[in-house]
Amino acid sequence: MSGTGRTRSIHHRTGHLGWDRDLPPAIEIGSDETIEVVLADCFDGQLGPDATAAHVSALDLSRGNPLTGPIHVATARPGDTLVVEVLDLQVGAVGWTTILPGFGLLADDFSDPHVVVTVRDGDRLEVGDIGVLPAAPFLGTVGLAPAAPGRHSVIPPRRVGGNLDCKLLGRGATLYLPVEVEGALLSIGDPHAAQGDGEVCGTAVETTATARLRISVNDHLPIAAPQILVPGTRGTTGPQGPRHVTTGIGPDLYLAAKDATRAMIDHLVRWYALTPEDAYVLCSVAGDLAIAEVVDAPNWVVTMDLPLEVVGGLGDAPGTVLP
Amino acid sequence: MSGTGRTRSIHHRTGHLGWDRDLPPAIEIGSDETIEVVLADCFDGQLGPDATAAHVSALDLSRGNPLTGPIHVATARPGDTLVVEVLDLQVGAVGWTTILPGFGLLADDFSDPHVVVTVRDGDRLEVGDIGVLPAAPFLGTVGLAPAAPGRHSVIPPRRVGGNLDCKLLGRGATLYLPVEVEGALLSIGDPHAAQGDGEVCGTAVETTATARLRISVNDHLPIAAPQILVPGTRGTTGPQGPRHVTTGIGPDLYLAAKDATRAMIDHLVRWYALTPEDAYVLCSVAGDLAIAEVVDAPNWVVTMDLPLEVVGGLGDAPGTVLP
Repeated sequence: MSGTGRTRSIHHRTGHLGWDRDLPPAIEIGSDETIEVVLADCFDGQLGPDATAAHVSALDLSRGNPLTGPIHVATARPGDTLVVEVLDLQVGAVGWTTILPGFGLLADDFSDPHVVVTVRDGDRLEVGDIGVLPAAPFLGTVGLAPAAPGRHSVIPPRRVGGNLDCKLLGRGATLYLPVEVEGALLSIGDPHAAQGDGEVCGTAVETTATARLRISVNDHLPIAAPQILVPGTRGTTGPQGPRHVTTGIGPDLYLAAKDATRAMIDHLVRWYALTPEDAYVLCSVAGDLAIAEVVDAPNWVVTMDLPLEVVGGLGDAPGTVLP
Repeated sequence: MSGTGRTRSIHHRTGHLGWDRDLPPAIEIGSDETIEVVLADCFDGQLGPDATAAHVSALDLSRGNPLTGPIHVATARPGDTLVVEVLDLQVGAVGWTTILPGFGLLADDFSDPHVVVTVRDGDRLEVGDIGVLPAAPFLGTVGLAPAAPGRHSVIPPRRVGGNLDCKLLGRGATLYLPVEVEGALLSIGDPHAAQGDGEVCGTAVETTATARLRISVNDHLPIAAPQILVPGTRGTTGPQGPRHVTTGIGPDLYLAAKDATRAMIDHLVRWYALTPEDAYVLCSVAGDLAIAEVVDAPNWVVTMDLPLEVVGGLGDAPGTVLP
């Protein structure tokens, strides 16, 4: 817990584009501190409620995906795991979903710019005149500075996280990220009001947001890539408890699926004392592989999602949840 | 409706291995007829409740995935769509999940045979001593004879369906399959008591089952690959109505994701009169890409899953459901 009594806040006007270990921190915090982050939309405010295809054509994409940060976490060291808990997330009243020529899963089929403006009415999203869906806000980008020096694009996600575009990163979720540099250098951006797994057209319901995050450092939880602890429910007939989610990140979905599965097996072996064979079997009968995003070239994200309450035999205590 | 009053039944003892357009039908039915199918487990009864790794080593895999059928549907012609509705599905009391050397997503990591025996207690599955989960039975294999002559392996799924291993094919689901031969020649097998998306170790909770299916022919619904209408709910905060699911099938997950997305766009354009651009946007914000199976070499299955009640603007009638 922070001893200050008041949650500190940072704003995207002191943020950055690109990941770079040599950027000066926007703020320094200690472990277990809560911080409020004010986030720009991924177009950096270039679109309004009246956006048209002409506005999309005129976008300055060099301003895309602006990040709030970096946040220097005092005790974080390379090899540690940064733990980011999404305590609250409030998204804007307007959102935009664009087709950007050359970007998206079906870039070969769609060559013209396009935009659909979404209006949020409480927890309900009116997606132009084509759809109505429940708001399901999450953070598209949460990541750390990579160890490799220089500036790295904000588009592809990496093992240190970044533009994961995984819809599970909403309120109540906890994200685990491997630290590669002193102080971790956490940045956040790209809030979404809703998205399907895949984000196929290249954008979600892109919007602004304010998030409240609790950030801590764990030095006994080595992970190779991001992992997520998700609260809540999945289906009315399925398990209701928390789920653990592993990721595989890279340009090949098949290899990413392997990485996500291996990470879940490692998790079950380490925390639940299953044999690797039994963990593999449990992944097969209860773990779900999804394509979280397949547009942030060159790296796609495959998730494996396992309800923790299914783990363990009849005589066991309820499943352990990660620290 | 069948006029007979009594549902006819076929058993796996009159079934087959391999898909072949020249197999004699086990039964001939008319469109809109209901039929009961009795299904062997994918090991053809070679494993018992006491199964061990030694039994797995001794399996005769040439007997794997036996099918019940073929069912000749009188009015089905190439170019039609066969509609298979799962009215009921009762699975066995015992199931098996195996690691077969050389098979499965992580075949390189797991070289020894292994088995976990599941016991079903009502709607609850006790997966050895490693897990407890709700039963979620579905049909692993539902398919038609391909047009190409000769015998085709039962392992890979194809555009005519087959070993889709998609966990959405449970009670209440409706599967749409493109017909390639006169009479469609439908066969069914490989029932599962539960499975995660991916079926990563190569097997689900493999068991026996009896299913009751309503089978009809549709001559004005051209599709390129299987599609599924799923009833029921998804998540407590998400949509509660039926979902439409498209598939992409092939050896490349990225291309399969493209195919599934294109099929969903076509569906939204045809049935909801969206523009292709708006349909693509709606897929991005509300459609989920999952890896249904990634083990039935050489063909994997990617699904796109879209809740139908999100489709359409505020003034529209509730979404149409496929005939």
